[in-house]
Amino acid sequence: MADMKFRIKAKSASPAKTIVKARNFELIVDEPENLGGSDEGANPVEYVLAAFAGCINVMAHVIAQEMKFELRGLEIDICGDLNPARLFGQSYEDRAGYKQIEVSLKADTDADESTLAKWLEAIEDRCPVSDNLQNPTPVKITCKKK
Amino acid sequence: MADMKFRIKAKSASPAKTIVKARNFELIVDEPENLGGSDEGANPVEYVLAAFAGCINVMAHVIAQEMKFELRGLEIDICGDLNPARLFGQSYEDRAGYKQIEVSLKADTDADESTLAKWLEAIEDRCPVSDNLQNPTPVKITCKKK
Repeated sequence: MADMKFRIKAKSASPAKTIVKARNFELIVDEPENLGGSDEGANPVEYVLAAFAGCINVMAHVIAQEMKFELRGLEIDICGDLNPARLFGQSYEDRAGYKQIEVSLKADTDADESTLAKWLEAIEDRCPVSDNLQNPTPVKITCKKK
Repeated sequence: MADMKFRIKAKSASPAKTIVKARNFELIVDEPENLGGSDEGANPVEYVLAAFAGCINVMAHVIAQEMKFELRGLEIDICGDLNPARLFGQSYEDRAGYKQIEVSLKADTDADESTLAKWLEAIEDRCPVSDNLQNPTPVKITCKKK
């Protein structure tokens, strides 16, 4: 299959608030007041978890269909913890981002445990967001002056 | 500093659409029709780019302030490409997620080039989303039947 390109265009609305356009959608990213924002939207690291949940939902259904079992419902709770010290420039001991991410699924299905174990393994392997979180992804940042 | 915990709770609304609650915010993740969705929201991999843009905006301002230069405006365009073959189970040659992510910043500032180069380096190092994309993050997925 050919590669697909995805892109967003974003603008700073304040030091903490970002307005993002993804195709015809506008997304507001902000920080809560205790992190210096005006709390008008979920914050960047919450957006990462939302992306992951959305991707798991898609993959869970694609793979359940391949494995021929019925998935009547799915709940996805995700949490992660990070130390904001590096972000704020106070210490460089810990990494900047999530140290680990925990995903708890609740699946409404009659599939047995061994089927579900194979299903989870395939979700983890084939989910794009899972891959980008679990494995290194090259990032290139360039800047021009306006 | 103490670790901070972030969490979301999500529910499958259809095989492609996910409703995510992050604190008091509701986010809709969906797929365009050509990827099997009802196109009611940005898709998971667009959410990843939105998260990254939001995080870069915050870090850009935090670090500009530390470096004592004025940042009057910031535009952040991000794109990435991925091969959907693994996602669809058609080939396992390529990775599932973005192969690389390109970020183009347009900064409204009088800072000189060498200042901006140090600024970019610090953003890349201290941005949580940049870290979680560029470096491996442990993910643990568990599942219970409803």
